[in-house]
Amino acid sequence: MNFALSAELLALQAKVRRFIAEEILPMENDPRQTAHGPSAELRQELVEKARAHGLLTPHASREMGGLGLSHAEKAIVFEEAGYSPLGPIALNIHAPDEGNIHLLEVVATPAQKDRWLRPMVQGHIRSCFAMTEPSPGAGSDPSMLTTTAVRDGNDYVINGHKWFITGAEGAQLAIIMARMEDGSATMFLTDTDRPGFVLERMMDSLDSCFAGGHGVLRFENLRVPASDVLGEVGKGFRYAQVRLAPARLTHCMRWLGQARRAHDTACAYANSRQSFGKPLGEHQGVGFMLADNEMDLHVTRLAIWHCAWVLDQGERGNFESSMAKVISSEGIWRVIDRCVQVLGGQGVTGEAIVERIFRDARSFRIYDGPNEVHRMSLAKKILDRAAAAHV
Amino acid sequence: MNFALSAELLALQAKVRRFIAEEILPMENDPRQTAHGPSAELRQELVEKARAHGLLTPHASREMGGLGLSHAEKAIVFEEAGYSPLGPIALNIHAPDEGNIHLLEVVATPAQKDRWLRPMVQGHIRSCFAMTEPSPGAGSDPSMLTTTAVRDGNDYVINGHKWFITGAEGAQLAIIMARMEDGSATMFLTDTDRPGFVLERMMDSLDSCFAGGHGVLRFENLRVPASDVLGEVGKGFRYAQVRLAPARLTHCMRWLGQARRAHDTACAYANSRQSFGKPLGEHQGVGFMLADNEMDLHVTRLAIWHCAWVLDQGERGNFESSMAKVISSEGIWRVIDRCVQVLGGQGVTGEAIVERIFRDARSFRIYDGPNEVHRMSLAKKILDRAAAAHV
Amino acid sequence: MNFALSAELLALQAKVRRFIAEEILPMENDPRQTAHGPSAELRQELVEKARAHGLLTPHASREMGGLGLSHAEKAIVFEEAGYSPLGPIALNIHAPDEGNIHLLEVVATPAQKDRWLRPMVQGHIRSCFAMTEPSPGAGSDPSMLTTTAVRDGNDYVINGHKWFITGAEGAQLAIIMARMEDGSATMFLTDTDRPGFVLERMMDSLDSCFAGGHGVLRFENLRVPASDVLGEVGKGFRYAQVRLAPARLTHCMRWLGQARRAHDTACAYANSRQSFGKPLGEHQGVGFMLADNEMDLHVTRLAIWHCAWVLDQGERGNFESSMAKVISSEGIWRVIDRCVQVLGGQGVTGEAIVERIFRDARSFRIYDGPNEVHRMSLAKKILDRAAAAHV
Amino acid sequence: MNFALSAELLALQAKVRRFIAEEILPMENDPRQTAHGPSAELRQELVEKARAHGLLTPHASREMGGLGLSHAEKAIVFEEAGYSPLGPIALNIHAPDEGNIHLLEVVATPAQKDRWLRPMVQGHIRSCFAMTEPSPGAGSDPSMLTTTAVRDGNDYVINGHKWFITGAEGAQLAIIMARMEDGSATMFLTDTDRPGFVLERMMDSLDSCFAGGHGVLRFENLRVPASDVLGEVGKGFRYAQVRLAPARLTHCMRWLGQARRAHDTACAYANSRQSFGKPLGEHQGVGFMLADNEMDLHVTRLAIWHCAWVLDQGERGNFESSMAKVISSEGIWRVIDRCVQVLGGQGVTGEAIVERIFRDARSFRIYDGPNEVHRMSLAKKILDRAAAAHV
Repeated sequence: MNFALSAELLALQAKVRRFIAEEILPMENDPRQTAHGPSAELRQELVEKARAHGLLTPHASREMGGLGLSHAEKAIVFEEAGYSPLGPIALNIHAPDEGNIHLLEVVATPAQKDRWLRPMVQGHIRSCFAMTEPSPGAGSDPSMLTTTAVRDGNDYVINGHKWFITGAEGAQLAIIMARMEDGSATMFLTDTDRPGFVLERMMDSLDSCFAGGHGVLRFENLRVPASDVLGEVGKGFRYAQVRLAPARLTHCMRWLGQARRAHDTACAYANSRQSFGKPLGEHQGVGFMLADNEMDLHVTRLAIWHCAWVLDQGERGNFESSMAKVISSEGIWRVIDRCVQVLGGQGVTGEAIVERIFRDARSFRIYDGPNEVHRMSLAKKILDRAAAAHV
Repeated sequence: MNFALSAELLALQAKVRRFIAEEILPMENDPRQTAHGPSAELRQELVEKARAHGLLTPHASREMGGLGLSHAEKAIVFEEAGYSPLGPIALNIHAPDEGNIHLLEVVATPAQKDRWLRPMVQGHIRSCFAMTEPSPGAGSDPSMLTTTAVRDGNDYVINGHKWFITGAEGAQLAIIMARMEDGSATMFLTDTDRPGFVLERMMDSLDSCFAGGHGVLRFENLRVPASDVLGEVGKGFRYAQVRLAPARLTHCMRWLGQARRAHDTACAYANSRQSFGKPLGEHQGVGFMLADNEMDLHVTRLAIWHCAWVLDQGERGNFESSMAKVISSEGIWRVIDRCVQVLGGQGVTGEAIVERIFRDARSFRIYDGPNEVHRMSLAKKILDRAAAAHV
Repeated sequence: MNFALSAELLALQAKVRRFIAEEILPMENDPRQTAHGPSAELRQELVEKARAHGLLTPHASREMGGLGLSHAEKAIVFEEAGYSPLGPIALNIHAPDEGNIHLLEVVATPAQKDRWLRPMVQGHIRSCFAMTEPSPGAGSDPSMLTTTAVRDGNDYVINGHKWFITGAEGAQLAIIMARMEDGSATMFLTDTDRPGFVLERMMDSLDSCFAGGHGVLRFENLRVPASDVLGEVGKGFRYAQVRLAPARLTHCMRWLGQARRAHDTACAYANSRQSFGKPLGEHQGVGFMLADNEMDLHVTRLAIWHCAWVLDQGERGNFESSMAKVISSEGIWRVIDRCVQVLGGQGVTGEAIVERIFRDARSFRIYDGPNEVHRMSLAKKILDRAAAAHV
Repeated sequence: MNFALSAELLALQAKVRRFIAEEILPMENDPRQTAHGPSAELRQELVEKARAHGLLTPHASREMGGLGLSHAEKAIVFEEAGYSPLGPIALNIHAPDEGNIHLLEVVATPAQKDRWLRPMVQGHIRSCFAMTEPSPGAGSDPSMLTTTAVRDGNDYVINGHKWFITGAEGAQLAIIMARMEDGSATMFLTDTDRPGFVLERMMDSLDSCFAGGHGVLRFENLRVPASDVLGEVGKGFRYAQVRLAPARLTHCMRWLGQARRAHDTACAYANSRQSFGKPLGEHQGVGFMLADNEMDLHVTRLAIWHCAWVLDQGERGNFESSMAKVISSEGIWRVIDRCVQVLGGQGVTGEAIVERIFRDARSFRIYDGPNEVHRMSLAKKILDRAAAAHV
C-alpha cells in the first residue's frame, strides 16, 4: 500500500499543471466557443499548444505517438487537464476520442490504424461513437439496439437512428454499433462523408464542453465494406465492454479536475468577500461546505486511483469502475453545487467559471450508464458474492 | 384547521390551469425567447392573452385593476401559472414586477401610482428593483450598501453601481436603494431614460425565464426629484422588509408550479419508456424518485399555504417566510434534479422542458436571501425563543 | 384553507401540555421502567393521573367514555402527549391499543365491545395485535400469512407463530390474524389466558417505550369460539386496512411530540453550553441544525394535519397516510439525530432524555410498513394516475 | 501508487479473520456482557484467546511484546478485529488503551513503562484517559480545562471533575489532564486506588462495547508524585496531539470492521428473505442500499489507508486524520443505518447483531472531536492554504 507518486510522474503532473495555468486558462473566454463546444479552429489552436509542449494524446501508446500512460498515470494527468474545460480538448483526451483511441489500439487492424487511429492520435481528425438510440431503441439497456446491418456482397448495409452522439458535428470517423440478423451486434468504422450518413440535427444540451456537441444521426442504406468491420463480426457488445470501463474512468479523472477548479474558485471567493463583518469563509455555514468539498474531492480521487490501479493489474475492473463512476459523479456534483452556493449570484452567471462547470457536470450522473444502472449492477454482484460466501 | 378551497377559488384554479394548458404551453418553443428572457414583443403577446382571459395582474387590488387576491389565493393561482416558464410573464406576476407592484400599492403616493403603478398593473411597462451591489457593496448583507444619494436643492443626486438587477433591460421604472449621508437608506423611483442611468451590460445567467434578464447598472450623478422618493426618506430598509416576505413567498409559488411540471414530465416518461423488460417507472430506483418527488411537492405546497395564511392574518411572517423559502427552494430543487435523472439524456437537453426548468431553478436557493442567511436568521430566533421559554 | 385551531381545541391543547409538564415529566426517571416498557404498576399510576384530569382515552367515542376526538383533534392532543415517552401510556393512546380501540369501535359486536372494548377504554386492560410472523411468514408483505384457522364445530382452531407483537406481555386481549382454508384471512379476538396461547419469549428491542414490550407468540391448537370472530370471516385484510391508515397517522402524531421534546432539549443546551468563546448555538454548525430541525418539525406537522383532515372528510386516505408516515418518520429521525449531535456526549448517554428518544424512534421507519413499502405503493399510484391523465 | 498488500500482511489479515470467525464470533452472546461492556472475567478470557494465537496487542512495539505494526498494517488488522464487537477487546486494541499504549511508548520514562506500560501490553491491566469535563469545563474545546494541579513539595495535588471517561470502571491506571497555575496543561499518571481518586458513578450509555464503560471521576486532593508526571510539565496539550491523530484513526479502523459486519449480515438477509414474490435484495429499493453500503465501505477504507500511509511517512497528519474521522464516522453510520432498515424488525431487536452495532456506532460522530469541530478545523486550514496560494 503506497500513495506516493514517482518522481517522473510528479514532474509530468507539474508540467501539465503549468501548461494549463499558463496556456489554457487565458483562453477560457475565447469567443470561438459555441453551445456545441469550441469551434474547429479554436480546437486546432489548442491542440497545437499541447503538441508544442509534448503533451498531445498522452494516453496513446508510444508507437502511435503518445506517452503510453498507464491508467494510474492517466489519473494524474487527466485530473490536471480537466482543471480547465478546454484542457482535455487541448491534450486530445476528451470524450469520445479518448475512448475510441483506446478501442482502436486494442481491436483495429493495422490498415484501420493507419487510416484512422494515427491521424486521431496526431489530433488531425475527430471521431464519434454511435451507439445510443431514441426510444424504443438502445438507451441504458444496450440489448434494445434497433440499428441493423445486413450483409450485401462485400459490404454491410446499415440503417438506423442514433442520438446523443457526442462529437458528431465535425467528426471524420464514426464507430457504429448495429444489430446483425442473428441478434448479435457488430461495430463498424466509417468515414462520415459517405452517402447515407446523415447528421440530422444538433441537440441543445446543458453542457457545452464537448467538441462537436451532441448530434442526431440517421443511416440510410449506409454502405460499409466488410474490411471496415472493427474486430470480429458479432462481438460488438464485448468490444463495448473493452471500451467502457477505462473510458468511464477517464471521465471521472477529467471531472475531478473540473470540481477542483470550482472548489479553488469558491475558496478564493470565500477569502475575499466580506459578509456580516467577516470574510464569507469564516461563517461556518460556508466553511463547512468547503470542508465537505475537500472530503468529496479526496475520496473521489482515492476511488479513481484505486480503480486505475486495478485496471493496471490487468483486471476488467467492472465492479470497481462502476463504483468509481457513481462515487465520482455524485461527489463532484455535490462539490460543484456547493461552489455555486458559496459564490451566490456569481455562481449562477458567467461572472465566474463555476456556472459553466455546473452546466457541464450535471450529465455525468447520466453518461456512461446512469448511476441507477450501475447501482443495479453492483447490487446484483454483491448479492451473488454474498450467496457464494454462504455455500 | 381546514385544507379545503372555496368553490370560487377552485373555479379560478381550473380557469388558470386551462389557460396555461391551452394558450401558453403551445408557445413554449416560440423562437422569440433569448438568453435574457422573452423578447418585448413576445411578452406583449403573452400579456394580451392573459388580458383577454381576465387573468392579468391578479394580485393587484381591484381598484388598480387586478383581482385583489389574498396570499392564500395567490398560492393557488401562481402555482398554476408557474406550470409554464412563460405563465408568470403572461399573467404579469413575474419577479420583480410582482413585488414592486405590491410595494407601490402599499407605499407610493397617488401621483406615483398614476404615473407608474397603473401602467405596470395594465402590463404596459416593466420595472426593476436596484438593491444588490458588486463587492464590497450590499449582497446578502444589505447593511453594506455603497450607492449614495445626496440632497441637492429639490433633487437627490445618486451615484453607485448595482448588479444582478433582474428585468433591467427594457424596464421603464427602477426602484433604487441608496444610502443617505446619515447612514440610513432610502428608496427612489426613477424612469430609466433619465441622464445618468446607465445599463452597463447584461449578465450571462444560468436562467432565462426573467423578462429583461439580469443587468449591471451604473448611476452617474443621476438626479431624482424629491417627489420621487418612495415613501419616507430613511425608511428604505423597512420598505425592503415590506416587499420581501410576500415577494419571497410568491417566488415559492411559481417555483412549485415549475417543479410540478417537471414531475409530470418525468412521470409520463417513466410510463412510456421501456428499459430492462418493463416500463422505466416500475424499476424501484425510478419509482422511489417519483414517490420522493410527490412528497417534496406536497410539503412544499403545505409550507407555502401555511405561510400565505399567516400573512393573510396580517402578520409580518418573517419566520414563516424564511422557512417557506428554504423548504421550497430545496424541495423543488430535489424534485427537478430527480426529474433530470429519470429523463436521462433527455433531461440534459432541449428534448424536454425539464432541462430549461433545471437551469431556471438553481438560483432559487440564492435569490431573495441565500438559504444560509435564512438559516442564520432562523437559528437566532429559535435560540432567542428558547432562552425566553427558560426565564 | 385555514390553519387556525378552535378555541376549544386550543384549550384542550393547553390542558394536555400542562398535564404532561406537571404530572408526567417528573415521573420520567421512575425506576419501574424496564427494557420492555413501564411496569404494570407504573402504567396504572399513569393512567390514574390522566383519568383524574379527564384526559383518558380521548380518541374513544363519547358513548364509550372517551372525548370523541376527530383526527384533526387527535393531531393536536397526541403531539402534546408524545412530548414525554410516558405521555401516550398515561392517556391510553399508545400503540397498539389506540388502533385496536378504533378497530373494535368500528367492527366489534355489542357483546364484544362490552367484554373487551369498554375495559380497554377505561384503561383496565391492554391488548395486542398479532399479525407479523417470522420468515417465511407475513412481514412487510401480509399476503405471506402462515398462521391458520380451521373450523371445528362452533370453534376455530388456530395454529401459528407470531413475533414483534407489541404489548404482548401483560395484554389480556389479542387480535389474531389467521389464514382460512380458502386463502382469505380472518381476525379473531381472544383472551390471552386461554390454553394454547403461549408467550414464547420477549424480544430485546432498541426501543423501550411500549407497555408490554415486543413478544413472540405461539398458538398451539388455540380454540376460539366462532362468536369471537371480529367482524366477518374472510375480511381480515380489509379490516387491517381500516385499522392501518388512522393507526399509522397517530404514530406520526406521537413521534412528532417526541421530536419536539428532543429539539427543545437541544435548544436549551445550545443556549447554555459555551464552546470556543460563545454559546454553542451561535456557531452556525449548530445553529443550522436547529434551523433544520424547526423546518422538519414544521413540515411533519403540516403533513400530519393535512392527512388528518383528509381522514376527517371520510376518505380512506391511503395515499396521504403513506406520505405522512414516510415524511414524519424520516423528518423526526433527522431532528432527533441532530439533537444527539448537538448534545454531544450527553446525547448518547442517559444524562439527557434525547438518548432514550433516539432509541425509541429508530423503528418508526420500519413499523407500520417499512418506508420502502410505502414508497413502492406511492410510486404505483403516481404512475397509474399519470397514465390516466394521458388517456 | 500501489494498493497491493504484502504477502506477510495478507497472511496476518487471514489469520486475524480466522481467529475472529472461529474464536470470537461464538462468544458474542456470552451473558457476561453488561451495559458497561464485557465483565473483567470475560475480558480476561478473550485476551487469553488472542495471546494463545499470538495476536495480543499487535500495535505495541516488538520490544514491549507486540508485533510493532505500522499504521498501514494496523488498518488491515484492526478492521478485521472490529468485525466483532468483542474483537478489539480480545486483541487489546480497544479504546482508550490502544491510544494510551501508543502515548506511553512515545513519552513515558523507562520506570513508568515498566510499571504501567508492560502490564498493559500484556493485557493484565487496563487504563483510562481523563480529559473531558462537565460544563463549564473542557468538552469539545480543550482550552476550557478546569481540573487543577498544584505543586506541593515533591507532589502535585489534583482537584477536579471528569466525565465520559471511557474504561473508568476497573482501570488500574489513569492519565489525567490538569491545568497548571500558569495556564498550561500537564498529564499525570496515577494508580486508581490512590486516596482522592473517586469513581463517582457510571454513566448509562447507548454503546456497550467498551470494557469499563464510561464513568464520572472526581479528584479530591489527589496526590501524584512529580515522578509520575507524563513527559514534561506544561506539555499536556502537545502530548494530547501525539495521542489524538493515531488514536482517532484506529477508531476508524475498528468501526469499519463493524460496518462491514453489519453489511454482510444485511446481504445474507437480503438473499434469504422473500418479499412480494422474490428475494428482498432483488427489489431495487433494497439492492441500491446494498450498493451504497459497498461504496461507503470502499471510500472509508481508502481514506483510512491513505491517512495511515501519511502517518507512516512520519507526518503529523492532522488534516488527513480529521478527514478520515469525518468520512469514516459518517460513512459507517450510513451503512449501519441502512442495514437496520434492510433487516426491518430484526434490525431493531437483538435478533441480529446489527442492533448492537447500531447502538455502539452512533457516538463515533461525537467521540474524538465532534465532526463539527473537525469541519471547523478543516475549513480554517483550507482557507489559509487558499490565501497562501494567492500571494
